[in-house]
Amino acid sequence: MADGQSPAVRIVAFDVFGTVVDWHGSIAREVDALGLGVDAAGFARAWRAGYRPAMARVMAGELGWTRIDDLHRMILDDVLVEFGVTGLDEAGRRDLNRAWHRLDPWPDSVEGLTRIKTRHTICTLSNGNLGLLANMAKRAALPWDCILSAEVFRAYKPDPSTYLGVADVFDVSPGEVMLAAAHQDDLDAARECGLQTAYVERRDEFGADRPKDVSPDPANAVHAKDIVDLAKQLGC
Amino acid sequence: MADGQSPAVRIVAFDVFGTVVDWHGSIAREVDALGLGVDAAGFARAWRAGYRPAMARVMAGELGWTRIDDLHRMILDDVLVEFGVTGLDEAGRRDLNRAWHRLDPWPDSVEGLTRIKTRHTICTLSNGNLGLLANMAKRAALPWDCILSAEVFRAYKPDPSTYLGVADVFDVSPGEVMLAAAHQDDLDAARECGLQTAYVERRDEFGADRPKDVSPDPANAVHAKDIVDLAKQLGC
Repeated sequence: MADGQSPAVRIVAFDVFGTVVDWHGSIAREVDALGLGVDAAGFARAWRAGYRPAMARVMAGELGWTRIDDLHRMILDDVLVEFGVTGLDEAGRRDLNRAWHRLDPWPDSVEGLTRIKTRHTICTLSNGNLGLLANMAKRAALPWDCILSAEVFRAYKPDPSTYLGVADVFDVSPGEVMLAAAHQDDLDAARECGLQTAYVERRDEFGADRPKDVSPDPANAVHAKDIVDLAKQLGC
Repeated sequence: MADGQSPAVRIVAFDVFGTVVDWHGSIAREVDALGLGVDAAGFARAWRAGYRPAMARVMAGELGWTRIDDLHRMILDDVLVEFGVTGLDEAGRRDLNRAWHRLDPWPDSVEGLTRIKTRHTICTLSNGNLGLLANMAKRAALPWDCILSAEVFRAYKPDPSTYLGVADVFDVSPGEVMLAAAHQDDLDAARECGLQTAYVERRDEFGADRPKDVSPDPANAVHAKDIVDLAKQLGC
């Protein structure tokens, strides 16, 4: 838990892909269902691996402001070539790209968020675009008080304007915001901006056969096994 | 109802002040409770009357981008002078300004929104800032799928970029978005952008003793007595 010096947490902002929803399992399942004859789990990982380089091109000014929906589509077209898939037409590609709107939550996410919401304002802080996050929340019953996105701040995480933007939107100090994420680099960047941080273990983010290192980092105020555990540690 | 040529409505975007919440009654009640010895209803109307001129100054470039919270505060300081109130200190002013985050919904709003949400995506399209709208929704249990605001589009209604922005966020055509509002000028501007429109009667928006003209305008696809009636007319 946070030390005695930290201000009370008023806003808990959540990273979404990997932290709240299982992108790997969900994408692999949709790819598998298409019967393209590819390694669906590998395809999901390759698609996701294109995400950071694509955002880096936007942040470097090489591409204008671009929504994740459009970056996902650019990457998809490349990954289809890489995996030698030729039988997916425009409508099929468009629908597969929307699979990112249909990601399933981890089994603890809805219960944990619902509990945390009783005592705090809960919001997303995701590089996903607003429409993607709203469609996902509606389908998966994620009970956000507010959906915040890179699209609002016109910058992707880990740009400081995203973390500080959450505090600004709610007119609170950065220390009254806690970022919850399954990625230490995201939390490191948030902490540098003065936010409190909570690490959420998602050992299977890249698949059960590729367990992730989920060792605690003492720099985080909270280390939680999942979002229900985070709720408990926040006293909710 | 919409004529046979109109596309199916996928997103219902709501004006908030006056349409979903009773700003007049809520603000008057808070002002009255402070015991400032002023006509509380008149104070509420004067405060609200400063809103459009203040937004016009921003849109004309005379002021930089300014959140409604800050415009409300500028207007409040003027209205306090106008009403001869000298006994409200900085903390009191700050708290009174937050009364706009604590507006009560009309009696039909939560039920109506909950019903519409079963078949459509429901969002705000308000000049209120994101934090204000999120705090209001949390307190009043308004079940938005997504909170959209002038703050996202960096323009106030009736700027076309706000109405078209809703369609853009959800990647739908303007005709698949319906704006619901208690103000014909807001609806007129939305219709010019290709949105479908629903008028919601709020005869008492300015107080029960100052009934508003709520005559139907045939240009609107729907004319509803309240949000429950809107739900019924949308088949929800």
